[in-house]
Amino acid sequence: MKKFIRTDLAAEVRESDPEKFNTEGSKHFEYENKSIKVSETHIESDEAAETTGQARGIYITADIGRIWLDGSEIFKEKVYALADILRRLTDTTLPQVSSLLVAGLGNRSITADSIGPKCIENIIVTRHIKNEQPLIYENLGLFDISAISPGVLGQTGIESADILKSIVNQISPDLLIVIDALASRKLERLVTTVQLSTAGISPGSGVGNRRYALNEETLGCPVIAIGIPTVVDVATLAFDAVSGYTSSENEVVFDEEKYESIKEHLCANDLNFFVSPKESDTIMKKAAELIGYSVNLCFNKDLEYEEMLSLANA
Amino acid sequence: MKKFIRTDLAAEVRESDPEKFNTEGSKHFEYENKSIKVSETHIESDEAAETTGQARGIYITADIGRIWLDGSEIFKEKVYALADILRRLTDTTLPQVSSLLVAGLGNRSITADSIGPKCIENIIVTRHIKNEQPLIYENLGLFDISAISPGVLGQTGIESADILKSIVNQISPDLLIVIDALASRKLERLVTTVQLSTAGISPGSGVGNRRYALNEETLGCPVIAIGIPTVVDVATLAFDAVSGYTSSENEVVFDEEKYESIKEHLCANDLNFFVSPKESDTIMKKAAELIGYSVNLCFNKDLEYEEMLSLANA
Amino acid sequence: MKKFIRTDLAAEVRESDPEKFNTEGSKHFEYENKSIKVSETHIESDEAAETTGQARGIYITADIGRIWLDGSEIFKEKVYALADILRRLTDTTLPQVSSLLVAGLGNRSITADSIGPKCIENIIVTRHIKNEQPLIYENLGLFDISAISPGVLGQTGIESADILKSIVNQISPDLLIVIDALASRKLERLVTTVQLSTAGISPGSGVGNRRYALNEETLGCPVIAIGIPTVVDVATLAFDAVSGYTSSENEVVFDEEKYESIKEHLCANDLNFFVSPKESDTIMKKAAELIGYSVNLCFNKDLEYEEMLSLANA
Amino acid sequence: MKKFIRTDLAAEVRESDPEKFNTEGSKHFEYENKSIKVSETHIESDEAAETTGQARGIYITADIGRIWLDGSEIFKEKVYALADILRRLTDTTLPQVSSLLVAGLGNRSITADSIGPKCIENIIVTRHIKNEQPLIYENLGLFDISAISPGVLGQTGIESADILKSIVNQISPDLLIVIDALASRKLERLVTTVQLSTAGISPGSGVGNRRYALNEETLGCPVIAIGIPTVVDVATLAFDAVSGYTSSENEVVFDEEKYESIKEHLCANDLNFFVSPKESDTIMKKAAELIGYSVNLCFNKDLEYEEMLSLANA
Repeated sequence: MKKFIRTDLAAEVRESDPEKFNTEGSKHFEYENKSIKVSETHIESDEAAETTGQARGIYITADIGRIWLDGSEIFKEKVYALADILRRLTDTTLPQVSSLLVAGLGNRSITADSIGPKCIENIIVTRHIKNEQPLIYENLGLFDISAISPGVLGQTGIESADILKSIVNQISPDLLIVIDALASRKLERLVTTVQLSTAGISPGSGVGNRRYALNEETLGCPVIAIGIPTVVDVATLAFDAVSGYTSSENEVVFDEEKYESIKEHLCANDLNFFVSPKESDTIMKKAAELIGYSVNLCFNKDLEYEEMLSLANA
Repeated sequence: MKKFIRTDLAAEVRESDPEKFNTEGSKHFEYENKSIKVSETHIESDEAAETTGQARGIYITADIGRIWLDGSEIFKEKVYALADILRRLTDTTLPQVSSLLVAGLGNRSITADSIGPKCIENIIVTRHIKNEQPLIYENLGLFDISAISPGVLGQTGIESADILKSIVNQISPDLLIVIDALASRKLERLVTTVQLSTAGISPGSGVGNRRYALNEETLGCPVIAIGIPTVVDVATLAFDAVSGYTSSENEVVFDEEKYESIKEHLCANDLNFFVSPKESDTIMKKAAELIGYSVNLCFNKDLEYEEMLSLANA
Repeated sequence: MKKFIRTDLAAEVRESDPEKFNTEGSKHFEYENKSIKVSETHIESDEAAETTGQARGIYITADIGRIWLDGSEIFKEKVYALADILRRLTDTTLPQVSSLLVAGLGNRSITADSIGPKCIENIIVTRHIKNEQPLIYENLGLFDISAISPGVLGQTGIESADILKSIVNQISPDLLIVIDALASRKLERLVTTVQLSTAGISPGSGVGNRRYALNEETLGCPVIAIGIPTVVDVATLAFDAVSGYTSSENEVVFDEEKYESIKEHLCANDLNFFVSPKESDTIMKKAAELIGYSVNLCFNKDLEYEEMLSLANA
Repeated sequence: MKKFIRTDLAAEVRESDPEKFNTEGSKHFEYENKSIKVSETHIESDEAAETTGQARGIYITADIGRIWLDGSEIFKEKVYALADILRRLTDTTLPQVSSLLVAGLGNRSITADSIGPKCIENIIVTRHIKNEQPLIYENLGLFDISAISPGVLGQTGIESADILKSIVNQISPDLLIVIDALASRKLERLVTTVQLSTAGISPGSGVGNRRYALNEETLGCPVIAIGIPTVVDVATLAFDAVSGYTSSENEVVFDEEKYESIKEHLCANDLNFFVSPKESDTIMKKAAELIGYSVNLCFNKDLEYEEMLSLANA
């Protein structure tokens, strides 16, 4: 798949050319955790990274389903499943973590880009309690968590990467979790998939086109990226529609000229068009709860669900 | 064009099959008002309505361009142009109007459906001043305007049509202007077109699928509908992309089987997907100002622009 | 207490002059329902109404405490207690109710006046399901509820009373519940008290000064008013402070001249100043949940709490 | 005036004890700039700082009047007047400034504390254009401005002071402007006064009780603080009411015991009560425009008003 087909999901890159992932240094697993289907891809060598076009690291794709239709019991089960997945990822790669900074990337006033800042609103923040009221903090038994929504370049004039780097430098967390909106290739993945990755965030990812890599190397602190697809690029969608219709057997042979012609045909305007569910605002709120709550439960191991809800909504 | 191709714009219906509009009782004009290109279609007989599939009435399509990029001077010019167009339409069909109710249809918490309620926020409401402080009202020289956002069926359990009918009955305005979000067929028309019509709103129109006709017959009061396209249906878009690619000479021959196959291919999910500009929230605000301000200026003939801005934002 | 001391709570009127309520046709009870202290005043004759200055009807004051500090279990208990109180009031006075319209008065964009419209967002609306999908409705076992936020006079130009009257006329509910923000006299009652009354809403009540009576006589349908104090009038507060300081034994003898002098001393400006908790926005959300949820549970007798939460947030 | 009388305005401190400001090293001026009355207090020595209880620096109090009632012309005039005042302050103390960081302190979801973040939304941010498109930046002739809303401790777990220090360190602006909500003593000053100061922000200031000094010493960069009173402390208000009523000649002799008794009398609850105008939300928006726009015009000397509006609202 050529780079101009817009997807931020490793699982979709792999789907589009599975052969490339049949290489040494690339592993793939599939399993279920409660009601969530999980697929895991490990890119373990520079050669595998080169061949697959994906940075070294672990990529987990969790199929959370249509959470906006879930009753409270199923939703709770999914929160716990996602907390499990995140905890396993953290335990494997960073067993000694004892402080966490969570960063919500994106523009809170554009629905499709707001998932990061919205998740932050559901995080139980405790770092200040630890510093100022150590006895109370001890009694609460909570994990040391801080959180920030750095805004986007057009709002601040400062790269998110620079803001995060300076704050990481100031407060030295053991782990940075970065939450961002992603672009997927297929409508059916919109807000039904969560990607967790130790590879951080690559340039060009995210609905708002983050421009600098956010990873351990650039930020000086281990990074886990949590992404949720909230948009599909219009030209990609139409290209797939045309290809799906004109190709045989669902085997899409990419044709750059065709893609460009479709893009031109569709976008006489200078806007970025994106496809998103009409009910985006509601769905995004639910997704922000799922992710925020599962981060809370992952790190606050003794916290019960109802108690966590109260603290997160305080 | 078959009914399942989703558009609420008479201009797009005409484009898709111009021959049908070459019939007695159907007239078409094009002209410019300042920087706005206007096309007008009159459906003057039941036969023409039958042939064209459009209810009797006047349909005006105003090409307002990308108002989100306009400086304040150009924007002001467009507000005045739209006020002119609306005034001409009103003067032609309802020369004696002396009180107005403006209704903003749609769900204010879904961006793509929020244009109606947002316009209402920009309307200068005076009916209560007229009733209670007739001398002050006289001095202000303002027009008698009231406004309502009736919500949507899922929020209220009551049809917008029923709410409007009961309020029209209660306060007896001379004219009802109904503002609603529309679906267009082409991306380039999203929030760059305004449709004004004396035919009211038809069942199935609007982003949220209004289900009852809103017109003089059903509401007991003359109706002008103002609509602005805020979404494109995904399957329509993809169908056009496929057709545009596979048909010769842009001549799209509709193929129902193809449309259904594309729809199924795309929408494995049960959400309504819509295409909209990523910056929808900002753009919608601007569009709501354009329409609200032009209604204010249309009916308050002596009000200056700056003064109107102050009153509308009070 | 003179009329210019601003309170909308019958309990505070009674406190300020308990002697007047020791009259034939006026009864008073106190009891507890789970964690909620309840006081009930019945004004049963026109003479008692005249003497006490309160319209005929039942006034229930429920002391809900600081719900913004409650954990989810206590909060749930209070929702059920309030549902009980409301159900007992309904069963006593209107045993045959089988359809309900809920109206949320006030201006949603002014925090202190937004409690009515915010409650509406938590109501499970079903009237349209009953009408269109009677079999599904039957299976769900839900109560016939519709809901409306009529806006305020300055936004619509139309009296809330007129909008409600016309809608009641159109859809003929068996009961109208009207929810509104109230003014209390004491800071400690802000968002810690709910008043339920069969007497409707009187002119001058409500944060936004509703001007027409909303009751069975004016609307043509039985009315239960639910009010929650969200503001204290600044001059009342200061007057009480001065009186509390200068009077002996907490016995406040009203002195009109003193009140006016304090009012002038404080309000050199032309704004309406109100006292409210700094965290109003959060607290209001919680109160809107309490009231909305308890209405849901009151009328949908078989609905479980978690299920109700899911439906209300759908 | 004792410290527990809550005011963040140097002008009110001075009013309450003018004698103390009649000391060497303390100067006072009054003048008008267009329709704005200005009073300036300079604290020029450590002795004067000790005596007056105000940190060394310049304090400017601008009486902007009831901007929520102003027509667009008067409002524009006030924006220019405030830009003049800010420019003169900057030119006097920091003539060589060529890059600016604006920080909006406070919690955007609590109306009374939201003025800082809301101002940020009206700032024209250009630093990224300068860095990436130097030619375009040159042509635009804009000033190098970046902006940040660091959130509050309860949201992030990180002191605003620490976030600002780390960002100042990362991007090294020549000047930091910090915008914050203040507490005033008198209702009539609410959102009718702007305080500009070179002394930064002191511990305990701000509606949300900022806890660390924000000034050149702590942040490593010159600081101008812009504050706007949005709340009056309830106990202060009542104390003044009582004192105004019981004292002769408006000469308030502070009586600590009386203050504490009033405070206890009023606040049986554990909330922070604040007085604010009922229409706060609207008024705050207007104030955020005034301040944001005047910062834009102060530093972008060639920018015309209308053009600035367009850029600020883009």
